[in-house]
Amino acid sequence: MGGEERRRSLWGWGWADKIPDAESTRNLAVQIAGVLGVAESDLPEPLTPPDPGALSLPRPRIRPADAPPGLSTILDGSDAVRAAHTYGKAYRDIVRGLHGDYAPAPDLVATPTEEAQVEQILAWCDARRHVCIPFGGGTSVVGGVEAGPAAADRPPTISLDLRGLDRVHEVERTSGLARIAAGATGPILEGQLARHGFTLRHYPQSFEFSTLGGWIVTRAGGHFATGYTHIDERVASVRMLTPTGWWESRRLPGSGAGPSPDRLVCGSEGILGVVTEAWMRVAKRPRWRSKATVHFTSYEDAVAATRAIAQSGLMPANCRLLDHREAMLNMVASGDVAVLLLGFESADRPMETPLLRAVTLAKDFGGRLPEGSVRHADDEAEERAALPRPVGGDETWRAAFIDAPYLQSALATLGIIVDTFETACTWDGFEALHAGIVRAVKGAMREACGTGLITCRFTHVYPDGPAPYYTFIAPGRTEALLEQWAAIKTAASEAILAGGGTITHHHGVGRTHRAWYDRQRPDPFAAALRAAKRAVDPNGILNPGILVDP
Amino acid sequence: MGGEERRRSLWGWGWADKIPDAESTRNLAVQIAGVLGVAESDLPEPLTPPDPGALSLPRPRIRPADAPPGLSTILDGSDAVRAAHTYGKAYRDIVRGLHGDYAPAPDLVATPTEEAQVEQILAWCDARRHVCIPFGGGTSVVGGVEAGPAAADRPPTISLDLRGLDRVHEVERTSGLARIAAGATGPILEGQLARHGFTLRHYPQSFEFSTLGGWIVTRAGGHFATGYTHIDERVASVRMLTPTGWWESRRLPGSGAGPSPDRLVCGSEGILGVVTEAWMRVAKRPRWRSKATVHFTSYEDAVAATRAIAQSGLMPANCRLLDHREAMLNMVASGDVAVLLLGFESADRPMETPLLRAVTLAKDFGGRLPEGSVRHADDEAEERAALPRPVGGDETWRAAFIDAPYLQSALATLGIIVDTFETACTWDGFEALHAGIVRAVKGAMREACGTGLITCRFTHVYPDGPAPYYTFIAPGRTEALLEQWAAIKTAASEAILAGGGTITHHHGVGRTHRAWYDRQRPDPFAAALRAAKRAVDPNGILNPGILVDP
Repeated sequence: MGGEERRRSLWGWGWADKIPDAESTRNLAVQIAGVLGVAESDLPEPLTPPDPGALSLPRPRIRPADAPPGLSTILDGSDAVRAAHTYGKAYRDIVRGLHGDYAPAPDLVATPTEEAQVEQILAWCDARRHVCIPFGGGTSVVGGVEAGPAAADRPPTISLDLRGLDRVHEVERTSGLARIAAGATGPILEGQLARHGFTLRHYPQSFEFSTLGGWIVTRAGGHFATGYTHIDERVASVRMLTPTGWWESRRLPGSGAGPSPDRLVCGSEGILGVVTEAWMRVAKRPRWRSKATVHFTSYEDAVAATRAIAQSGLMPANCRLLDHREAMLNMVASGDVAVLLLGFESADRPMETPLLRAVTLAKDFGGRLPEGSVRHADDEAEERAALPRPVGGDETWRAAFIDAPYLQSALATLGIIVDTFETACTWDGFEALHAGIVRAVKGAMREACGTGLITCRFTHVYPDGPAPYYTFIAPGRTEALLEQWAAIKTAASEAILAGGGTITHHHGVGRTHRAWYDRQRPDPFAAALRAAKRAVDPNGILNPGILVDP
Repeated sequence: MGGEERRRSLWGWGWADKIPDAESTRNLAVQIAGVLGVAESDLPEPLTPPDPGALSLPRPRIRPADAPPGLSTILDGSDAVRAAHTYGKAYRDIVRGLHGDYAPAPDLVATPTEEAQVEQILAWCDARRHVCIPFGGGTSVVGGVEAGPAAADRPPTISLDLRGLDRVHEVERTSGLARIAAGATGPILEGQLARHGFTLRHYPQSFEFSTLGGWIVTRAGGHFATGYTHIDERVASVRMLTPTGWWESRRLPGSGAGPSPDRLVCGSEGILGVVTEAWMRVAKRPRWRSKATVHFTSYEDAVAATRAIAQSGLMPANCRLLDHREAMLNMVASGDVAVLLLGFESADRPMETPLLRAVTLAKDFGGRLPEGSVRHADDEAEERAALPRPVGGDETWRAAFIDAPYLQSALATLGIIVDTFETACTWDGFEALHAGIVRAVKGAMREACGTGLITCRFTHVYPDGPAPYYTFIAPGRTEALLEQWAAIKTAASEAILAGGGTITHHHGVGRTHRAWYDRQRPDPFAAALRAAKRAVDPNGILNPGILVDP
């Protein structure tokens, strides 16, 4: 790799150059402190990120030279590379990184560029009982790619970085399918698909960094707010290497032959095998788009309107409801309204009619359209006319959505805790679940931090319920961030379980959610999953401690 | 049960009184013989169905009195009841029934009416190592509910008939969900849902007899030709009793917490547990319907048009393409055209616009609309105006669809082999797969029967491929039907595997498809499934031989 390459932040989210500098961070923190009722003078001295060149990592137990001949060239035991593979980008990871704590660092990092090398690495790990942790974009926000507690008897650990496998191998135009290597990130695979006139249209917040394989094994949630929300639905077949051989399904549009093998891979979080490629359902780039931003004074009305739209069969691509505070923080409104972002798209035909029907449903529940909030775009016509871009609503929200993780990282240096969590529930259970979560999180923030703010948006909605996504912001103490965060996170997770929700709608389980996941899933299913893992990974080398006990 | 109750045929499909009588059967057989080029005089003497009162069944190895106190009242060891639970309704089953062969009969039939009894039965079977075969509507066409070969060392076998658990327990209107007992048949659950203004809208061909639990464990394909085609998509949560305890998932609209437990139940064909109830996604009854029948001279054009519609995002409820012969046999056309049946439905809004867009796409590929073939219905307006029903097309096809299994049964008595099989494949693979199947089946029919006919329709279509459904008809010899049928079925199955299809799109695996299923699925997945079964059914009592080896 060239020295001029843009650098990823070691401790924080994304590109190092996109994390606000000290001055911008302070300005932002002052603003937030104001909202939280905290005096500027109470902001702590900022934490200084560790010098990447002077990290203190545990001594590696194995070296590249310990590997079979031919593998040493794709193994890296340097502190910098090991540190970059120690964590994902969960709030805990950012704080531990800021404090220079890299105790769970892997002993080696493998960077294969072809499947044969993945086979060799896995065979070596299996023979030596080394732990192998598949690593994609390293954007897990739930501790999905870190080794277990750094106990003395923990076996040597290899982080298997798959980003060297990043090609769109082939595009099959007739069926709209593409065979894509698992290590391709969003921009890489979309760039290659675009040359064929196709798109996967899967845009998680981590799109720029996360990989197809990571999306599949964590059941990532994407662009579509209704219908095919999870990546699961776009998988036509998957190729996964297990310690006992290749697990490869047939490329099929649908099947009824036994339980779906692909559905056991989706969500398996690296415990069953290493996904190396998948046939994905891709589509023509949409040409027509219709959008609207709808305001509601009453949140209850906004929820009812969103439900009506979710149950109408209209299946909007975008149907995101921001509560009053969320809309304000994202600067799409000034705090007096909840905002529903609606969007339809099609490569086949104009989308005015379904949008207007959805808007009518929203109006039935008191929704109001701010001037200029409805917009119909025809990409070809737009290119000719160079229409002006609209202001507010959708575009503003999208920019805030992309930047949010950078702000989270920056604010951590000033002790401000910002984190998100998500769930899903039935419509009839939402009001009580929501109230329970808000009560629990506010209580925990008050107790741990003195005060705090919680906002909610629906990222995805279904005929039978929404997927509410929460952001909490609280003023922490830089030396106690992990404890304060854990108290709030635990309160949130308990409230989710008690209210009938799921511990995760699309972030995954990892190490963070494991305790609640265990209580949520059926016990016999847990037994079945443990047994399934033992059958394909008899030595338990793959991501031990994730989903099931080693 | 009262003596006046309508009687199910012991050997044939459905209601005994709906199987054509000897004279009608002969008239039909003469017509078909004409199409096949077989002289009427070559039709054999008809087989006489066995007298249900004088069957020769193997002696039962256990009696109701052998069960723990309290269970004997729900156990039946009579020959008539055991015979009715020996088979499903596969072609092999009909022929074996006609010949009075009930060798694999279960020793006892259990008929619980509450979950506690299911628990008792399963505990008893597990303690005694009796085999337990969950039995729903008994409509399996793949040998999914019959015991293995009647070896002397086969353990005593209980057929667990779940039709006594048939209530819609509750309807949760806000989220559009209903908790339904697994033994409810289509008409029973739809009748109860209708009182609440809801419908599940899952109409497999077996709708009248098959049960919700059966649909779930076989991944039944239903009413919707696009989008949510399989019952899997309608399951919000499921409750299943395993020998090691209850497997019950949370009622969630979506989740990303590990691999989906429900998706391992869907398609499990009774080997992991006994599904007793499920929360199902139900919907308001559609009010607006728009339909069209489109004719194509060229089958290739018809396939291309169907693909364009499947990839348009329009998601018609009905999108069934009948090839020239299928359209003729179903009397929707006279053999000179392929026929595409299109239908849209909505409880929310009129469907003219999407239908007309789909029709335009069809016309782009040479589709023609016979006079009166486009129809828009508004159920409320229709009620007021009592509009005349249209002729031909959709309605004609629907009647033929419901009656087909009765004709299959009747024709078996005159040695005419009629059976169906289905698969799914990608669009780019369809032409070769279809040619391979037609070639193989024609060749096998010629060799085994001298001649034969094969037709094709698409029952479901996806953006990435169709689910072709084949019917074959050949003149057999009444004494050799099983061998002749097996030769044709084997040729079809081999052609499916060779052409990249799936051995079943929605009929299931059962005993009929097992050999090809084993070759189709990934080996490590087979190992995982075997291990999962062993974990939840350590004594291997549930439906042994299905999906995995005992």
